Amino acid sequence: MKTIEICDPFRLPTGFQAGGMHCGVKPDGKKDLALFYSDRPAVVAGTFTTNQVKAASVKLCLEHIAAGMPGRAVVLNSGCANACTGSRGMAHAKQMAVETARRLQVEKTEVYVCSTGSIGTFLPMDKIEQGIRKLAENLSPAGIFDASEAMMTTDTRPKRHAVTFNIKRKPVTLAGVVKGAGMIEPNMATMLCVLMTDVSVKREDLCEALRHAVDYTFNRITVDGDESTNDTVLCFANGASGADTLTRDHKQWPRFTEALQSVCAALAQMIVQDGEGATKTVQITVTGAVTDEQAESAARTVAKSMLIKTGWAGGKPHWGRVMDAVGYSYAHVVEENISIWYNDLPAVQRGMAAETPAQELAKAVAGNGFNVRIDLGLGKGQASILTCNCTEEYVKINKE
Amino acid sequence: MKTIEICDPFRLPTGFQAGGMHCGVKPDGKKDLALFYSDRPAVVAGTFTTNQVKAASVKLCLEHIAAGMPGRAVVLNSGCANACTGSRGMAHAKQMAVETARRLQVEKTEVYVCSTGSIGTFLPMDKIEQGIRKLAENLSPAGIFDASEAMMTTDTRPKRHAVTFNIKRKPVTLAGVVKGAGMIEPNMATMLCVLMTDVSVKREDLCEALRHAVDYTFNRITVDGDESTNDTVLCFANGASGADTLTRDHKQWPRFTEALQSVCAALAQMIVQDGEGATKTVQITVTGAVTDEQAESAARTVAKSMLIKTGWAGGKPHWGRVMDAVGYSYAHVVEENISIWYNDLPAVQRGMAAETPAQELAKAVAGNGFNVRIDLGLGKGQASILTCNCTEEYVKINKE
Repeated sequence: MKTIEICDPFRLPTGFQAGGMHCGVKPDGKKDLALFYSDRPAVVAGTFTTNQVKAASVKLCLEHIAAGMPGRAVVLNSGCANACTGSRGMAHAKQMAVETARRLQVEKTEVYVCSTGSIGTFLPMDKIEQGIRKLAENLSPAGIFDASEAMMTTDTRPKRHAVTFNIKRKPVTLAGVVKGAGMIEPNMATMLCVLMTDVSVKREDLCEALRHAVDYTFNRITVDGDESTNDTVLCFANGASGADTLTRDHKQWPRFTEALQSVCAALAQMIVQDGEGATKTVQITVTGAVTDEQAESAARTVAKSMLIKTGWAGGKPHWGRVMDAVGYSYAHVVEENISIWYNDLPAVQRGMAAETPAQELAKAVAGNGFNVRIDLGLGKGQASILTCNCTEEYVKINKE
Repeated sequence: MKTIEICDPFRLPTGFQAGGMHCGVKPDGKKDLALFYSDRPAVVAGTFTTNQVKAASVKLCLEHIAAGMPGRAVVLNSGCANACTGSRGMAHAKQMAVETARRLQVEKTEVYVCSTGSIGTFLPMDKIEQGIRKLAENLSPAGIFDASEAMMTTDTRPKRHAVTFNIKRKPVTLAGVVKGAGMIEPNMATMLCVLMTDVSVKREDLCEALRHAVDYTFNRITVDGDESTNDTVLCFANGASGADTLTRDHKQWPRFTEALQSVCAALAQMIVQDGEGATKTVQITVTGAVTDEQAESAARTVAKSMLIKTGWAGGKPHWGRVMDAVGYSYAHVVEENISIWYNDLPAVQRGMAAETPAQELAKAVAGNGFNVRIDLGLGKGQASILTCNCTEEYVKINKE
């Protein structure tokens, strides 16, 4: 029996409810407001954009997280980022928390706020407040489907993933929903993600586990290399399963961190697969670097190169462009030591073309997904980054 | 009377000849081999890619430059980068120098070699050698027009610029030709450029002047953020004008460095204007940074953002994306201190939308070229970067 199982169909953990609707931020009538609710106080961890220009909602969340407050709800709007909106924007974010708290009869400090959309415009607060009122009256476990749709901006589909496992025979659930298609670049939390579990977890340990999981999942994907003002990952643990409270010393701790990382990894992969205009998902793995950090720099440089991403859209391997990108990364490389494989087919050996016929390599690149492994032949450092190709469609989406 | 005048029509300085032809590297019959020749030994300076993966031609040029050798010729092919070609590629680069030296009756160490094109394939040396033979027999000052065409890869037009000025009433000329349209990213020499002057210049001072000129011109432009394995700027000073030998103490030194920088700046601008698929040239200027380096980081981050470059292709100002990029650059910023202008129209004041109507800003962005000035309001650091927009055409070119 597998220790961690995917919940299919997707479901929320015990004690969580949600809802989503169109309140009027988006002009096209699509859903734009989501509410997530825990029926009891939950321990909260969060990671946020490292951008120095932060949306009002991020500043507010940072305040609540820093105060170590428990959490009861997340209110989230799409269609307007509420960034570069000064003190008026900050007042709006606080108002969203206050209105949500009033309607749900919780403390305003227990409400976390997220926004996503275009920068520099103000939220239509009357519409938002009316929306919050309606959502608060119509929360349900099944409301998560509407909620995940209401998070979307340029996403073509909602993104949800949940797993279940046992803690001393008590079944527990961990579920996450995410939005993000463009402006996705690691080195920080990368998009809007709400994670919910009915496990009880000690706060410091949840923070540590989330940081680690985000580092190896959301921070290892790239779509266009741009970093948003609004990126937020929140994790609520409400203990409603009744299972043991977990700390890092608990025997089941590794299972919990594994579950958390697997949900984050699944959601991160969905983001790349739904990358603006993307048609291929590509896993870049660098091995043999002097250090893990250098491996990461090399992998990230390849994953971000526009020349490579557009080249792959044309279905050719372009290993020369990969050699080029590795060469200008921060990683120390020696040309003659570099080997490259596409789906285990050797493309480069000792810095030069391997004997695999170009058509064979092109076949690997023609698929919806493929792996590129780059061995630098210098040390033991390694890292992986998930990226996508770049098509004319990406440009078209971002022109509009 | 202006002290430095543009040569119109373009012409080579005294003592230089050139030629260009199709020898057979490119399958489509376009010109692919160029030869540049000085009828007397010239002092040579050069700057090269900082990519750790260097083409054979770059390695050979670095050897010649390091040895302080005078120069008589540059042989340059397009259609094949001769990069990632190992010892066989190195032998080919040397063979190009040897064959050119034999035909021109100069020393092989006096011949510099450049290549540009796709990575990982070998040069057709029989065709190259036949081509060198023909070119050496047909050199002329007017041959520079064919030579500049033979440098082209994805360029849509050849790029040439020359200026003339007096040193103690003796007229002197400085001319340059360049190729480069994609894979253009600063922090190094950025493309293939051959600069020629009939001024006599002390070697160390020429090196210093070239480094400075490249730093503020070719290293301040970006098309797609990728750095080539082959980037090379060579400057030949042959003294054929008979004017005084210049050193940095000479009264005319500032005029020479100004002329050199003006030629490099004109050529750099032509590269951006001819950026793959680009339809707009945009000057990004950052002022008020804590240091010049921080200003450069902020300007470069804006200039490289795919979100911004594609957004401008749609004709909208997207100042929110500019705020976002400045926020994730290495420059220290305080959101409330940032102001942004498009062609002197205020777009952002104190981190928020200024009062200029969006249509006015859109009018500025609609032109073929515009300026974006970003004041960080923190210090005296400043820097400028020249960039272009990114259209579907860029993706199309690089898919093929």
